[in-house]
Amino acid sequence: MSSQNRKIRIRWINPIAQPHYDEPMGMALKQVAEVGTEVEVISLRSEAKMDNLEYRFYESLVIGDVVKVAKEGDSHGVDAMVIGCFYDLALEDCREICQNAIVVAPCQASMQIAANIANKFSVIVGQVKWIEQMTERAHRYGFGNYLASMRSIDMSANSLQCDTELTTKRIIEAGRLAIEEDHAEALILGCTCNFGLYEKVQQILGVPVIDPLIAAFKQAEMLASMKQNFNLAPSNKWSNEPPSESEMLKFGLHDLSDPIGNRFLIS
Amino acid sequence: MSSQNRKIRIRWINPIAQPHYDEPMGMALKQVAEVGTEVEVISLRSEAKMDNLEYRFYESLVIGDVVKVAKEGDSHGVDAMVIGCFYDLALEDCREICQNAIVVAPCQASMQIAANIANKFSVIVGQVKWIEQMTERAHRYGFGNYLASMRSIDMSANSLQCDTELTTKRIIEAGRLAIEEDHAEALILGCTCNFGLYEKVQQILGVPVIDPLIAAFKQAEMLASMKQNFNLAPSNKWSNEPPSESEMLKFGLHDLSDPIGNRFLIS
Amino acid sequence: MSSQNRKIRIRWINPIAQPHYDEPMGMALKQVAEVGTEVEVISLRSEAKMDNLEYRFYESLVIGDVVKVAKEGDSHGVDAMVIGCFYDLALEDCREICQNAIVVAPCQASMQIAANIANKFSVIVGQVKWIEQMTERAHRYGFGNYLASMRSIDMSANSLQCDTELTTKRIIEAGRLAIEEDHAEALILGCTCNFGLYEKVQQILGVPVIDPLIAAFKQAEMLASMKQNFNLAPSNKWSNEPPSESEMLKFGLHDLSDPIGNRFLIS
Amino acid sequence: MSSQNRKIRIRWINPIAQPHYDEPMGMALKQVAEVGTEVEVISLRSEAKMDNLEYRFYESLVIGDVVKVAKEGDSHGVDAMVIGCFYDLALEDCREICQNAIVVAPCQASMQIAANIANKFSVIVGQVKWIEQMTERAHRYGFGNYLASMRSIDMSANSLQCDTELTTKRIIEAGRLAIEEDHAEALILGCTCNFGLYEKVQQILGVPVIDPLIAAFKQAEMLASMKQNFNLAPSNKWSNEPPSESEMLKFGLHDLSDPIGNRFLIS
Amino acid sequence: MSSQNRKIRIRWINPIAQPHYDEPMGMALKQVAEVGTEVEVISLRSEAKMDNLEYRFYESLVIGDVVKVAKEGDSHGVDAMVIGCFYDLALEDCREICQNAIVVAPCQASMQIAANIANKFSVIVGQVKWIEQMTERAHRYGFGNYLASMRSIDMSANSLQCDTELTTKRIIEAGRLAIEEDHAEALILGCTCNFGLYEKVQQILGVPVIDPLIAAFKQAEMLASMKQNFNLAPSNKWSNEPPSESEMLKFGLHDLSDPIGNRFLIS
Amino acid sequence: MSSQNRKIRIRWINPIAQPHYDEPMGMALKQVAEVGTEVEVISLRSEAKMDNLEYRFYESLVIGDVVKVAKEGDSHGVDAMVIGCFYDLALEDCREICQNAIVVAPCQASMQIAANIANKFSVIVGQVKWIEQMTERAHRYGFGNYLASMRSIDMSANSLQCDTELTTKRIIEAGRLAIEEDHAEALILGCTCNFGLYEKVQQILGVPVIDPLIAAFKQAEMLASMKQNFNLAPSNKWSNEPPSESEMLKFGLHDLSDPIGNRFLIS
Repeated sequence: MSSQNRKIRIRWINPIAQPHYDEPMGMALKQVAEVGTEVEVISLRSEAKMDNLEYRFYESLVIGDVVKVAKEGDSHGVDAMVIGCFYDLALEDCREICQNAIVVAPCQASMQIAANIANKFSVIVGQVKWIEQMTERAHRYGFGNYLASMRSIDMSANSLQCDTELTTKRIIEAGRLAIEEDHAEALILGCTCNFGLYEKVQQILGVPVIDPLIAAFKQAEMLASMKQNFNLAPSNKWSNEPPSESEMLKFGLHDLSDPIGNRFLIS
Repeated sequence: MSSQNRKIRIRWINPIAQPHYDEPMGMALKQVAEVGTEVEVISLRSEAKMDNLEYRFYESLVIGDVVKVAKEGDSHGVDAMVIGCFYDLALEDCREICQNAIVVAPCQASMQIAANIANKFSVIVGQVKWIEQMTERAHRYGFGNYLASMRSIDMSANSLQCDTELTTKRIIEAGRLAIEEDHAEALILGCTCNFGLYEKVQQILGVPVIDPLIAAFKQAEMLASMKQNFNLAPSNKWSNEPPSESEMLKFGLHDLSDPIGNRFLIS
Repeated sequence: MSSQNRKIRIRWINPIAQPHYDEPMGMALKQVAEVGTEVEVISLRSEAKMDNLEYRFYESLVIGDVVKVAKEGDSHGVDAMVIGCFYDLALEDCREICQNAIVVAPCQASMQIAANIANKFSVIVGQVKWIEQMTERAHRYGFGNYLASMRSIDMSANSLQCDTELTTKRIIEAGRLAIEEDHAEALILGCTCNFGLYEKVQQILGVPVIDPLIAAFKQAEMLASMKQNFNLAPSNKWSNEPPSESEMLKFGLHDLSDPIGNRFLIS
Repeated sequence: MSSQNRKIRIRWINPIAQPHYDEPMGMALKQVAEVGTEVEVISLRSEAKMDNLEYRFYESLVIGDVVKVAKEGDSHGVDAMVIGCFYDLALEDCREICQNAIVVAPCQASMQIAANIANKFSVIVGQVKWIEQMTERAHRYGFGNYLASMRSIDMSANSLQCDTELTTKRIIEAGRLAIEEDHAEALILGCTCNFGLYEKVQQILGVPVIDPLIAAFKQAEMLASMKQNFNLAPSNKWSNEPPSESEMLKFGLHDLSDPIGNRFLIS
Repeated sequence: MSSQNRKIRIRWINPIAQPHYDEPMGMALKQVAEVGTEVEVISLRSEAKMDNLEYRFYESLVIGDVVKVAKEGDSHGVDAMVIGCFYDLALEDCREICQNAIVVAPCQASMQIAANIANKFSVIVGQVKWIEQMTERAHRYGFGNYLASMRSIDMSANSLQCDTELTTKRIIEAGRLAIEEDHAEALILGCTCNFGLYEKVQQILGVPVIDPLIAAFKQAEMLASMKQNFNLAPSNKWSNEPPSESEMLKFGLHDLSDPIGNRFLIS
Repeated sequence: MSSQNRKIRIRWINPIAQPHYDEPMGMALKQVAEVGTEVEVISLRSEAKMDNLEYRFYESLVIGDVVKVAKEGDSHGVDAMVIGCFYDLALEDCREICQNAIVVAPCQASMQIAANIANKFSVIVGQVKWIEQMTERAHRYGFGNYLASMRSIDMSANSLQCDTELTTKRIIEAGRLAIEEDHAEALILGCTCNFGLYEKVQQILGVPVIDPLIAAFKQAEMLASMKQNFNLAPSNKWSNEPPSESEMLKFGLHDLSDPIGNRFLIS
């Protein structure tokens, strides 16, 4: 049935305990959402106040809360969720605990979309630091053969939006090398903080450039729509089987501290 | 921008020279389409009148026409096209020739969607014959590690819709083995002719079951929407570079026989 | 220099918030330690009181604390640490944050040792649930080609020590199939809770059987000894670079809540 | 039995609708054939008059005819056939339809021969455009680990024979880089249009250089001889099972338009 | 040039110190050789008198002599050599030391030929013992994806020719399972001692069956012919570079004990 | 039980027939051994008097003797043995023949240890010549994904200790490129002749540098200790099954010439 029963609800998880990005992020997402999609942006309550997740240590400090936020969303009617970081942290964990909601993340979503429009792509990352972990993700998702290269622009995640002209210039330089030397046919911007920069790069370099924020959000929206209309649901079998309610009750997992620090809702 | 400039146009290519499936196929697709998506189903004019594509020989006889149909669509404003066969025949070829339209196919689309909801999936195929070629496709797309198994129900493609109760029964038997013995967490129905059967199987077996027709169509719709709103375009670089207009002119490729046998349009 | 400057200090991290396993675990480890090795067993303070980590959700709830415990050990002169769960959770995270201490985990350690005594091995797991994640780990570590199979005995982690005769019987059954049907040449017991069972299995089946607790502890001891005597140290380069002190200070990461719930020390 | 019952018949399929290469190609092949081998060169009748197959689009337009030519040869006593293009187009398709004749192609044949005389080889291609598709072929055939690199000389296929001195010079330059930088131990000339150039390159660079035309033809001759003397035959099982005669009759596939445009026979 | 300058000389190395197989082996090879090919069978002089090479230990005892025999042949005008054991022992070693002669071996040759006539093949081995090492070889050569299975008939190498009716019966049983359960499309007999059995198996099972003796010999003959007519030569670059004459002189390697135990020549 | 019953006996096999390295090597190993470990260094009796093993030909000449030395050690109470060459020659062969002793080798041991302290490592080799074979080893062991690169310093194995300042300088240059361009996080010195050089390199480059001699010896010591205390034993199943005593007797393999040329013992 093509008409949707009710509005689609997408939750974007900002996996940090910094609330001030939530509104601008929500407004940006609303710009790319279908009419009628409800967009909710959540950031965390954690005592760990990082403004970036470039280190595995930082990720480790928020993984538990990210999964708790996913679990909360799953039991409150959210249709799909996005983990808002290109490391796709806790993706398999969130998928296991969710019995109704579909969980996606920028790296997998971007690569899936890129694989529909190019046979080889490169990822433009902020720092060499990121390459090993993101490459491991690419292999996990099966995109090892599609990967022409990962190239660094030597900028930290939270500096990417400081001087977007500079960032764009560096992306273009790295992207040109990826195309000419590594034979990339498309580019993926390897951080959600690159939001808004893809168009200029695409225009200059003449190859498709994937914005991971748009990729992840549209993927989430599509899967949410398929969930509503065609009963698409996350698997709960084998590695995706969540713990039983009774066991979680026994371990006190229903009374865990609230992981939600801030919530921005726009419908 | 979230509001779409104009209606999305999706072309479904029935890669056979049999027109009588076009209307029912179009009606089925219309059922799953977003409001306002224009659905066009094309079948071929070829002298080769197969009603199935289970053999590579049969595929080879239609590949040229499928690519010509894609080229025609690309130059006539189609936003996205689906090659309507789970072998995904001519997929890379169509992607190369298209400079505007995005081309998807059921096997890749189904596996991409499945990889968002399960860590392992099996494909239920009609015949053992299909397994080698579809497995090769799965590896090409990077899904080798996701593939729990391919299991055959020992039915030909064009018999799948004859007695859907029988087909469903066999799919359930094979699917149960895929889950229990191969540890599949989701199933993909490995033929577009399985249309309509996924729900019953999903209900009985309790794992997600992907209908490749829906998967491919929704993927096409999403990518078409991204094309309209975010300038997503197919790469034309390196392996995706199409021949030049002048060279095609020189070789008489603008005057090739019309590949379109039948056209069913519903908007 | 073959004489050691000082005693080796090994920390075993029980990645759960249950203190009552610490002492028996410590006593068991002391049994297998070199004379003079100081053994410390740590369990967590977390509000999440699981007694097993069979679910990714459970893991996600303790990952942050595990890494904090590793960080604490690293800055307090521990030579090597073991993450006491065969999922090897947070292994790369702990390695990144540690600048002095070497971190190992049972799955990687067991497979490395097995690869020295057999060309093919199987892992005997508690439940089918575990297989996908452990297989992914095996591939991450490069042991895909060594893996003959993973076979389940259909028992939960925390039941493995309830009736060890039953557990051993089931391991022997599964192990025999692994040897005869999958051509395993050695077996790995895929849970640290199998402690003490390997000898009987080895004796009956006539192939080497790796106890992951011993494997991980001895690997930690060897690497700690190499650290002391040959300056072996964890890499801090690229993906292993930890955050700077100043940035951690800025984010308040030195004042995080104490993750240590219980400490059992035996020297 | 070492004496052959009858003369070996090899068909070389020029997969384009340009007859004027057939005689020179046939003469060239006759030069490399065993005494008594009958050489037949076939070009196509197609309306698509390309003089090269550098684009997937061009390939798609001839695939059907190539397979029909193979089918015709199979039913007329040809012992082995070569698909005369380094993309090895339609190779699996031709193998499926042939029940008696053995089908080979230059890329697979060249790599198989190279793997007998070197542990690493590079392919010298005309254009970067070709690399992705030929690399995919190399992986399909299992030669991923043998491949040191693919290096382009930036020349189109149909220009390779225009100024062979220039072509040779460029091949030597690219080959030298392949040897020195990529550690190639042998080279493969990645286009049948490089015919005749290997000797000079081999002499200058001091590593084996494979001419794909010779490689494919000699491989065809050997397999044809094994067919005659030892009943070597193409498999007709599973993925190689051709359609039944009755089904082909039903679909009118015996009355398809004649794909043969020109035939040059030399015995 | 198609006429050969001189007769082709092929040396078959029986890698054991048992002379009594040399003459029958030579007669068998002569049966499959081209008219005019000179066949030489060499067995070793070693103190180690094994009549089979089923164990790595046995192989290790003859590897040095096999390479010395290859070196001797290389410097005495032999065109191509075959290492007569399906483990392909010392293949890369022989290829390195030979500067003129081309060296082939049954496992690689059989799989290369099989890959021209089937998309999936199984190897029928004598004992489970062999599987790991032969599988490793298959992967080394790139045939991992072609390999449907290895199946054992539970017979030692030197018993294969004792009761050929029994051996054939067992091969047929194992082969049938390989076809039906593992979806093999062709079979390879995984021991040169299976000589003469392929025809019956092929006839009964209806799929191609590769005799490794014929495969290796014909491959050697083809490559030798290419060597004579087209200057095909083994690479001597990088990993294939042999030691210098002066260094070998310095180490006394020209005065090593004669490895040749017996020589049977038939021209 | 943590107290060892008796002293650990480690045999280091110098796989050449040059006795004069045995004593210095033994003294060096004694320096890195645990108190109480008995160190024995064996060199060969072979007529082939190479002072290096850079060529496969050289290796082939000693493989038989190396395995015989391993067999001798296995039956004389040696706990663990090291094959003293980074090519790890005859490793699988020695493991098969040994029923009690554990056999390790520098390449596998170094990579296993490196995989505990870094996610990516490079190997610094003497010559480009070595790269293919060592890369093949790395893949065999499963370390393909860990390998950032292999980089050559263009020095032969037996020149590495001539001017250690020069060698160290070149290693530092190559290592710096491995870190900066290939993103290595740790380095492995790819020849046992680099003994003693790691510390300076580590100090200058700031990443862990693995000395293969120490790595292999400590690995051997750890496994020997596990053997004594926990009955860890080499597998004798399937591919690791040695020949039966009776068959070896029949073939005269108990009377083979003594492979031991020199023995240096220090306890």
